[in-house]
Amino acid sequence: MIAPWRSPLAHALHRNRSLAYARFLQLATVRPDGRPANRTVVFRGFLDNTNQLKLITDIRSEKAAQIPQSPWGEICWYFPKTREQLRLLGRLTLIDAHHGDPALLKARKMQWHDLSDAARVQFGWANPGQPRDPADPFLPPPPDPHEPLPNFCLLLLDPVQVDHLELRGNPQNRFRYSMDEGDTWHVESINP
Amino acid sequence: MIAPWRSPLAHALHRNRSLAYARFLQLATVRPDGRPANRTVVFRGFLDNTNQLKLITDIRSEKAAQIPQSPWGEICWYFPKTREQLRLLGRLTLIDAHHGDPALLKARKMQWHDLSDAARVQFGWANPGQPRDPADPFLPPPPDPHEPLPNFCLLLLDPVQVDHLELRGNPQNRFRYSMDEGDTWHVESINP
Repeated sequence: MIAPWRSPLAHALHRNRSLAYARFLQLATVRPDGRPANRTVVFRGFLDNTNQLKLITDIRSEKAAQIPQSPWGEICWYFPKTREQLRLLGRLTLIDAHHGDPALLKARKMQWHDLSDAARVQFGWANPGQPRDPADPFLPPPPDPHEPLPNFCLLLLDPVQVDHLELRGNPQNRFRYSMDEGDTWHVESINP
Repeated sequence: MIAPWRSPLAHALHRNRSLAYARFLQLATVRPDGRPANRTVVFRGFLDNTNQLKLITDIRSEKAAQIPQSPWGEICWYFPKTREQLRLLGRLTLIDAHHGDPALLKARKMQWHDLSDAARVQFGWANPGQPRDPADPFLPPPPDPHEPLPNFCLLLLDPVQVDHLELRGNPQNRFRYSMDEGDTWHVESINP
């Protein structure tokens, strides 16, 4: 069942398609010490027949360490051309090489295969966030497109609340989509 | 003392100045239930002679309620033209009409004065996030530029850590600026 917020999101992606960075979004998580973290990631589409957004990450990144302790994330996605914002609050699932669900392991493998060579090779780079060795040329061998490197993770966000703000309205329009206990989505018009 | 990360930020703002939305950034905070929140806000410059970033908000907004409980925020700021990202982790200070520091109250008043009429009038709109009354025309009287509406807040972020990523490098370049116990900034080159 396609969630009702998928339609405004699809429209925004379509109308902003001339901007490569319209597929970039900001993902907020919570650090083990309770402070927030926030970084830009790339939208990789939806997991088949679900409303879960696909992202990717490196198991060595800070966010991969944060998620098992605090599995919630909020995406903030601003579309410059149409001047609208979607905020998606949801639960995060990290799919590493040892995940127990074979279907999700398969999705991880497919996602790896679908990446560009330039995106794949970054998973062969030295440990992200560690002091850089000036002698390191960052030129690992090109990874096999059919076999994900062990540190490659698929990351899913499964929204439970979506806030859509259209700055272009006069006044602005704002809609809140919420999922109830029975997994049914409701939408209401709210004050901007 | 101007922090060393101010220089790359100033360069990024300058090189992206043709894009009005280069002054938009994403601010992550933590909700009272421990889940993250994330939204787009506008950079309003620095508070005089400090390294604190100025933002604005409405006392009736969710973030204004989150900050007293969890005063940390992380800004994620992506600059499309130069393909670089700054992440600024810091402590947030909310300056409402009842703040105890006269200098900060004055900064709040000046910020209100510097806003456009269109930005000021939004503080006269109905309670943000509440169900919208279709009969409400959202046409309050234009507020006095010399006297902030009571719900107007200046919001400051005082960074303690800044992560600067340049996607254009080959490989990418990434720098981490950290403030030590003695309030001195240090910078190191880290793996992207």
